[in-house]
Amino acid sequence: MRAVLHHGPRDIRVETVPDPVLLEPTDAIVRVTLSCICGSDLWPYRRQDAPEHAHRIGHEFLGVVEEVGADVRTLAVGDLVIAPFMYSCGDCEFCRAGLQTSCVRGGFYGSESIGGGQGQVVRVPLADGTLVAAPVGEDDPRLPALLTLSDVMATGHHAAVSAGVGAGSHVVVIGDGAVGLCGVLAAHRLGAERITLLSTHEDRAAIGRRFGATEVIAERGEAAVAAVLERTDGLGAPHVMECVGMQGSWDTAVRIARPGGTIGYVGVPNGVDEGLDLSVLFRRNVTVRGGVAPARAYLPELLADVLDGTIDPSPVFDLELSLEEAPEGYAAMDQRRATKVLLRP
Amino acid sequence: MRAVLHHGPRDIRVETVPDPVLLEPTDAIVRVTLSCICGSDLWPYRRQDAPEHAHRIGHEFLGVVEEVGADVRTLAVGDLVIAPFMYSCGDCEFCRAGLQTSCVRGGFYGSESIGGGQGQVVRVPLADGTLVAAPVGEDDPRLPALLTLSDVMATGHHAAVSAGVGAGSHVVVIGDGAVGLCGVLAAHRLGAERITLLSTHEDRAAIGRRFGATEVIAERGEAAVAAVLERTDGLGAPHVMECVGMQGSWDTAVRIARPGGTIGYVGVPNGVDEGLDLSVLFRRNVTVRGGVAPARAYLPELLADVLDGTIDPSPVFDLELSLEEAPEGYAAMDQRRATKVLLRP
Repeated sequence: MRAVLHHGPRDIRVETVPDPVLLEPTDAIVRVTLSCICGSDLWPYRRQDAPEHAHRIGHEFLGVVEEVGADVRTLAVGDLVIAPFMYSCGDCEFCRAGLQTSCVRGGFYGSESIGGGQGQVVRVPLADGTLVAAPVGEDDPRLPALLTLSDVMATGHHAAVSAGVGAGSHVVVIGDGAVGLCGVLAAHRLGAERITLLSTHEDRAAIGRRFGATEVIAERGEAAVAAVLERTDGLGAPHVMECVGMQGSWDTAVRIARPGGTIGYVGVPNGVDEGLDLSVLFRRNVTVRGGVAPARAYLPELLADVLDGTIDPSPVFDLELSLEEAPEGYAAMDQRRATKVLLRP
Repeated sequence: MRAVLHHGPRDIRVETVPDPVLLEPTDAIVRVTLSCICGSDLWPYRRQDAPEHAHRIGHEFLGVVEEVGADVRTLAVGDLVIAPFMYSCGDCEFCRAGLQTSCVRGGFYGSESIGGGQGQVVRVPLADGTLVAAPVGEDDPRLPALLTLSDVMATGHHAAVSAGVGAGSHVVVIGDGAVGLCGVLAAHRLGAERITLLSTHEDRAAIGRRFGATEVIAERGEAAVAAVLERTDGLGAPHVMECVGMQGSWDTAVRIARPGGTIGYVGVPNGVDEGLDLSVLFRRNVTVRGGVAPARAYLPELLADVLDGTIDPSPVFDLELSLEEAPEGYAAMDQRRATKVLLRP
């Protein structure tokens, strides 16, 4: 079968690899119907040093169950399943608490034995705890929307939940990538009344407005901070969603959070070298909450809302390619010619 | 009248200063019955550079109202009042939300015109919003316990509330100073079932046990982290109270927090130069919550519990001096010969 491998700095290749097989009785083999490239896939892509070995990549996919291990109880061959971006047992204290990303048996895709989501077939460990079946066919037009539940929509939702967004909230969303845009949609879904999106890309801002942003601030850094403060009587916003993960976006988040407010964050920390400045947070009693999103926990409720048409996050995909064209997909996202790239195997 | 002034590095003097007078119609003049020295008073005391001018110091006091401005409605001459460590209007959106430390009109004691709590008389601005009357006499034996509500007990309570401590919780308290010890008492009061105190001073640990600590770990740094992990199946504690504010205590807090857990912090950040390492918090979805404690918000409920004997935080005072002996009080706390010093004017 064909799969995407990361070889080195900006070196992505599609190669023939062995078909995965069941290794554990709790595994499922999933033939991928749709996968995509994540903003976080760009971090290894952009690294200057090459990995020791080329490695499989991709962690967002949905597909059809082709084979299940003897201990798999809740899934059957033929089911269309959505895979959260991490696998998890569903049974440990963290899984039961809805924090499957800290599952004591769980882990990430992209290793040699498990494979990556950007491939034609994936071995999914702990299938019962991990996969969520969706009552749709392989040709359902909602598949791209459902694929966002694998990561970006769940992650945007985690940012909103972590920021304490609820009915009537005012929230500022930092980041107009796929996660930030999904964060806007999640905040809107949770009833936020005022959603301020920081976006300097008009095409992304347009999606943000469609998703529920009530205002867009087309500034960065100091100017963005000044604009938010100006629009909030100088006090800042009670809810801030940090959907980038870099020093600049964090500096903005900390400075626009209102006293007693909450920063919900989901951007993978990358280059936040100076660390968080506690003194400002301390003085203002600003809470910092978030992390890697337990997509598995949120999947059922978000799935229901996609199926009944309440939300449609699919506009975050603005380029569709075949799996063989994955290298072009990475380049397009790296050069910001695309927000998020859909891959059809 | 006599008051304590900070002149420079480890240079504290008691001097005669003008008696304060009403400046605003919302002021009250309070004759101090009891005040004390705070751990945070040691930060300026220990600084290597001298302040531009000698300045008044102290922010914890209780006393008797001697005079009120024309607009003061809720207080009368003769009332015994407890002063939270900041003054606040009681009327702005932050005061109404219980975050009086972010009051838009409020501020700190210790300036030239307002004076410090370590003095014989203090002008208290915004008296209605700030002071809380207690139905006790000047010679009530509970005064030391009531004085802790001015800062340390309220601050320990804020740490516990911020850490999400409730009935049945397991919490680790970092810091065995007066705030950490009050944090133990607060966690116990909130129903925590297991309270682990990190303390390397046997006398302080003894107070901690009396306040409700169910176990004491007499280690610091790496060893403390290892001990907590060993006692929590390697997973860490769901609730952590950071009551110190230094890099080492923060490093410990971050490393012993269980995935999905919460660090409640109240230690004034001091020398946390490396900032908070977001990557660990991110991976584990650990929440960081806290800041400067809104003592005014907590005062009524804590006051009721002191009055009816439910809590008695007064054992944190282990040295009692006259106001004239304040320099010796600072030295004793600086050299860790005392945990917290009571000053009788």
